[in-house]
Amino acid sequence: MMDSPATSSRDRIVQAAMELFWRKGYGSTSIADILETARVNSGSLYYFFKGKQELLVAVLESYRDGLDAMLLVPRWGVVEDPVEKVFALLATYRRLLVETDCFYGCPIGSLALELHEPDPEVRELIAANFEAWTSAVRGCLQQAGLKDGTDHQALAELVLTVMEGAVMQTRTYRHIGHYDRAVTQLRDYLDSLRKSTGAK
Amino acid sequence: MMDSPATSSRDRIVQAAMELFWRKGYGSTSIADILETARVNSGSLYYFFKGKQELLVAVLESYRDGLDAMLLVPRWGVVEDPVEKVFALLATYRRLLVETDCFYGCPIGSLALELHEPDPEVRELIAANFEAWTSAVRGCLQQAGLKDGTDHQALAELVLTVMEGAVMQTRTYRHIGHYDRAVTQLRDYLDSLRKSTGAK
Repeated sequence: MMDSPATSSRDRIVQAAMELFWRKGYGSTSIADILETARVNSGSLYYFFKGKQELLVAVLESYRDGLDAMLLVPRWGVVEDPVEKVFALLATYRRLLVETDCFYGCPIGSLALELHEPDPEVRELIAANFEAWTSAVRGCLQQAGLKDGTDHQALAELVLTVMEGAVMQTRTYRHIGHYDRAVTQLRDYLDSLRKSTGAK
Repeated sequence: MMDSPATSSRDRIVQAAMELFWRKGYGSTSIADILETARVNSGSLYYFFKGKQELLVAVLESYRDGLDAMLLVPRWGVVEDPVEKVFALLATYRRLLVETDCFYGCPIGSLALELHEPDPEVRELIAANFEAWTSAVRGCLQQAGLKDGTDHQALAELVLTVMEGAVMQTRTYRHIGHYDRAVTQLRDYLDSLRKSTGAK
């Protein structure tokens, strides 16, 4: 009978934590911040979560489970070419950077470096997020008709590497040129891996 | 007359902050931690620094000023080929990862993502560290005889991007394979940029 309001409180709490961990960082976010943003009282929060770390787990699960709906489907529904799907994904991060005056950081990448000694459960969930992302990109690369012997897994990891490293530099310099140059280099590299047309 | 001991206290404090910010993160390090590690009293610390942020500035200046002596000279003194110098630098990070069971993180990259809204002075010093690193790498790439039209600046930034993104994934998965695959991909890309031997 209470399912609906209860679910919605829990969702509001996770949503607030997600927003605050992204904007301020995990360490700088207090339970009080989360209560204020979610507009719930502490009894409600502690009914669902033992504390900040359990909330972090829920946030990471939410990112992982929402990857398709939040990140991939909106972009990939309108792009056919598998290599262009990869660049459409990278363009999403560019848009987020531009819209935030280059304040944007990948929430997963930031947590990966902010948490110096994460509990195994947290670390594994960060890895699961990376894994879901690279696995989707690998799927595109496998359909791209690249040269024989191409290591699609390594290449998908490189795409993540380029996104994360480029976001880091763009945030630091507050200049989108850093992101654009990295993506251009990645495109050059992917071009070099295409089967040469008309070659034996 | 007191110059020597004073300098050495200041150095010990900066050294301790450097170590702790790297190992625990900036946010998780307290002034008490720094005093304990540096074995100085708080009067001594506040004689030199107003607080943690001034210490952070000193740490970032120290990384920037120490780049040549700490990171580049030990490696580059023994390698001649300019492209191999770049890979020797990347091998240093690999060694640090292996020696720490993949706990290692680049201290600058971690600060770049941990500090969500750094003061301009701090942000600029993080950028200055990236700048010194990429500028040294760019110097190597310019001597490498790559194809005409190669954007050496963009390529140097890509090397930093690959290092940072690969360290992030390696730390998260606690598996050096992630680092190695990224470096292999970078090598493939650099190979594709070499002037083809014997070509027109």
